[in-house]
Amino acid sequence: MTGVARAEIIAIGTELLLGDTIDGNGAWLGHVLAAGGIAVARRAVVGDNARDIQDAVEEALERSGCVICSGGLGPTRDDITKTAVARLFQRDMVMDAGWLDELERRYSERGWMLTESSRGQALVPRDATVLHNTRGTAPGLALEDERGVVILLPGVPHELRGLTEQSVLPLLRARWSGALPPVLSLRLRTAGVPESVLAEGIDDLVDGFAPLTLAYLPSSEGVDLRLTSWGLPEAEARTRFTVAEAELRTRLGPVIYGSGAEDLAAAVGRELVARGLTLAVAESCTGGLVAKRLTDAPGASEFLIEGFVTYANEAKQNTLGVAAAVLVKHGAVSEATARAMALGARARAGTDCALSITGVAGPDGGTVEKPVGTVWIAAAVHDRLEARRINVLGDRAHVRDRSAQAALTLLRDMVLETVT
Amino acid sequence: MTGVARAEIIAIGTELLLGDTIDGNGAWLGHVLAAGGIAVARRAVVGDNARDIQDAVEEALERSGCVICSGGLGPTRDDITKTAVARLFQRDMVMDAGWLDELERRYSERGWMLTESSRGQALVPRDATVLHNTRGTAPGLALEDERGVVILLPGVPHELRGLTEQSVLPLLRARWSGALPPVLSLRLRTAGVPESVLAEGIDDLVDGFAPLTLAYLPSSEGVDLRLTSWGLPEAEARTRFTVAEAELRTRLGPVIYGSGAEDLAAAVGRELVARGLTLAVAESCTGGLVAKRLTDAPGASEFLIEGFVTYANEAKQNTLGVAAAVLVKHGAVSEATARAMALGARARAGTDCALSITGVAGPDGGTVEKPVGTVWIAAAVHDRLEARRINVLGDRAHVRDRSAQAALTLLRDMVLETVT
Repeated sequence: MTGVARAEIIAIGTELLLGDTIDGNGAWLGHVLAAGGIAVARRAVVGDNARDIQDAVEEALERSGCVICSGGLGPTRDDITKTAVARLFQRDMVMDAGWLDELERRYSERGWMLTESSRGQALVPRDATVLHNTRGTAPGLALEDERGVVILLPGVPHELRGLTEQSVLPLLRARWSGALPPVLSLRLRTAGVPESVLAEGIDDLVDGFAPLTLAYLPSSEGVDLRLTSWGLPEAEARTRFTVAEAELRTRLGPVIYGSGAEDLAAAVGRELVARGLTLAVAESCTGGLVAKRLTDAPGASEFLIEGFVTYANEAKQNTLGVAAAVLVKHGAVSEATARAMALGARARAGTDCALSITGVAGPDGGTVEKPVGTVWIAAAVHDRLEARRINVLGDRAHVRDRSAQAALTLLRDMVLETVT
Repeated sequence: MTGVARAEIIAIGTELLLGDTIDGNGAWLGHVLAAGGIAVARRAVVGDNARDIQDAVEEALERSGCVICSGGLGPTRDDITKTAVARLFQRDMVMDAGWLDELERRYSERGWMLTESSRGQALVPRDATVLHNTRGTAPGLALEDERGVVILLPGVPHELRGLTEQSVLPLLRARWSGALPPVLSLRLRTAGVPESVLAEGIDDLVDGFAPLTLAYLPSSEGVDLRLTSWGLPEAEARTRFTVAEAELRTRLGPVIYGSGAEDLAAAVGRELVARGLTLAVAESCTGGLVAKRLTDAPGASEFLIEGFVTYANEAKQNTLGVAAAVLVKHGAVSEATARAMALGARARAGTDCALSITGVAGPDGGTVEKPVGTVWIAAAVHDRLEARRINVLGDRAHVRDRSAQAALTLLRDMVLETVT
């Protein structure tokens, strides 16, 4: 990692240690810093305790010379980051006239009084650089001495993101004066193949990718392959990514459904749009999850006509036309019902394709014959209709996630076989 | 925090530092450890680098005497946690016959060959305690010497959770020999009131809650209030929680919609079930998000009959009966369309209540009159129908999240006013 600028990130908040809140800021910061040529050497999470904050900041500052803290800048009494770090720099707190004016202007525009606790947001460590926060009342702050720089950001994600883009990245780029060789990654996403099988299939290629490294990232969605360039010039890294990606795609074929952070749902949408196909989805146990994922990315209106969350049996009958006899004879979780739901959704919405899911998500509703985790999925593409049973071990959320992933995989496989 | 057992958590994986993966394990472990009487003093995230892993584990072991590591136990070459920590304890690696048998049994049951990389999963540091993993091929491991204990767990969330519940918690409880006074929290959830306004309304109560502490946790869903007991005996803590919660509820009234991790959608469902009311939802820009949230918790079938994701205008017309003239005259994002969608969903599903959302989620589709973030929501409860326009600043995901939260808040307000 030579030639790479280093920073550490410290997330502050007892709620993070207690597990009340998941730290999504750390991942986001890691991503934008790496893209900007700054490697995150380590992250830490500490509680709202002055001593712990000071210890963690001091250690990180000694190790890396650049520390970004998030959280604990709010107007309430548990927010102590600002004063704790000021003490570490032996700075007293002063009222920042510029930020106080800004707060007074914002409050008066809304016809509100500036409260005492809100005025406190303009108290800053002496000689700190005040970073303008357009999305909230706590400014970002930068403190610097011979040990390095400490940047304080609010923990509210969209405030932290705005401040990072508008102020922190320019500040850090100026600090390392000019173009840094970025840490760049290329992530290829696969579904349906276990990590060890994937590794045996491509492990002989890995040494040839050097100096790029290859990592396997398994999750409930599948296994991602991440190629990383640690500080190569961008043009060289991109060339090596292109070569390595081509080798992996040759070896793995359509098992790779996308790259970057692309969701399988978006990949399915892309294939549908490329073929001019329209889609309707009918969901029971996933309750809208597949439709939600299909519409997470903009542009879904190009292929998604309609979604049906037919949670009750009467909805399956009335809206999708599933015959009462099918529900009585086979049950709501059955191949016959899944097939009827897909055909019903396609007919009602007038689309080329349809996808359906019906299962026992649990924790209740399981039987010996159909335990929790039993799920039937069906996909229709033109005149083809296929159904599959899957059995998922895990809790309700895991069953729903895996069902959605399996259904989207089935639909994608069938769409890829379609002659355009 | 006297009388409280301490542990630290270290998440291992370059993908976490690069932001490819969000660390949800840390929050989950923090939660279950605190409930078991073990306070998480600090968390760290380090990359797949032996030196960084060893430094972080050694520091944490010195500070707290108990370290739980997650990640880097897989079968591929970037998984080095096991050997790095073994070296820190000066232990060589030995083949564990028991785990090798287990792996051979599992593979042969499925008719697979045990591959070389999979055999490596049974290599463990000498004298480590092997923790049985029923959900994956990497066992958990515990290493101990005079400095304390280090526990290694796989990073795959449902494997880590199973191992923690089955092996780690019993092991730690035995270590601190018996009943530990737990760190207990009570979290009350509010929506629709800014943090500073909430704080001014209740800040005079906080000193009276001591030794309980109160924290404000803002997010895109609203502001949570967290009361925490640091090591009081459980019965005393529960009594104090009851008193404090009553005072907060008296002051804040229905602004508090739930407690714990309860989602606003689940709170709405609870109020509907209590009144015997049924619901249909019609979503355009949120694309199934509200239906998905309503069905996240089990029992949704008691009130949710059906959801309609009417993404295309033709779906709004055909399925919900929104008049073409309304769409032409007012547009898909309008009060008239939102009202017609709610009434149409209620009529089609034959429910007591309905909720509708139509808006410009972005990033495209905005106009001067209706910029990105313009959303109309409507709710029908018996013969009442109300619509509201909201304007959200932020990206597509933020617009969708805030729209769903605003729609659920509107429905809840109307349901609470319903005479049962």
